[in-house]
Amino acid sequence: MNKQLALMLAGGILSAGVLAAYAAEGKPEDTVKYRQSVYNIIGWNFKPMGAMAKGEMPFDAAAVARHAQYVEMMSKALPEGFAKGTGPDAVKNTEAKAEIWTKPAEFDTKLKDFQQEAAKLTEVAKGGDEKTIKAQIGKTAETCKACHKEFRKD
Amino acid sequence: MNKQLALMLAGGILSAGVLAAYAAEGKPEDTVKYRQSVYNIIGWNFKPMGAMAKGEMPFDAAAVARHAQYVEMMSKALPEGFAKGTGPDAVKNTEAKAEIWTKPAEFDTKLKDFQQEAAKLTEVAKGGDEKTIKAQIGKTAETCKACHKEFRKD
Repeated sequence: MNKQLALMLAGGILSAGVLAAYAAEGKPEDTVKYRQSVYNIIGWNFKPMGAMAKGEMPFDAAAVARHAQYVEMMSKALPEGFAKGTGPDAVKNTEAKAEIWTKPAEFDTKLKDFQQEAAKLTEVAKGGDEKTIKAQIGKTAETCKACHKEFRKD
Repeated sequence: MNKQLALMLAGGILSAGVLAAYAAEGKPEDTVKYRQSVYNIIGWNFKPMGAMAKGEMPFDAAAVARHAQYVEMMSKALPEGFAKGTGPDAVKNTEAKAEIWTKPAEFDTKLKDFQQEAAKLTEVAKGGDEKTIKAQIGKTAETCKACHKEFRKD
């Protein structure tokens, strides 16, 4: 069943499209709150996986499988959180850099890298092989860091 | 494919178990932030569906199908946001009432009502019938209100 879900996710049932498709709707602050909520849920689920990968927490394949699904789904939910008009010029309390909107193709690539590695994590989590899963947790975390480095304020 | 996903969700792949299973881990504030994030994403996705049901926004079956999936998934993500030790006696800035933890069976029932109606919404959204979908949006919203009335501060 997990494989089918992964295929459906890969098939774009939950695809949120490309960044450019989103125009600002409603208050920019609401969009910022939305994307911060999405990142919060990603972090909530990634934290135990990161701890497992580092050996700071006992490895639990079933827990990884569950967390990975949420991370993958939230990766699909991210693009609509970056609608035009919701950058640091429009709102306070955002760590999002203006470059997200001035270099949309680059940001989109980084976002897709994350979506792809998160999807792979859901995939390998089904296999249950600890070494493979831990390696993929690391690869996924790298895509987080790569995007934050370029597009998030310190 | 949507049907398969719904079946998998119903089958508990993403089930977050019962409330009692969650003990407080980490800082209570982090758990509060997590559950508020989950509710924020539910609200973000429910808002356009509510507007469509009320005729304030053009009906879009594909959009409902997408939003409904996120609402359903987030309904499964809620229980771990109500770990013991994260109530109003432990943290500020929460609208959660103490009754959530003093009447866990009642809260669990309300939460499950929401999960069930949200799952049905994903299901009927596949059919594409506007009248049926709008009615189910209303039914799902009622489960939100029923829980808020009893367990959320005004």
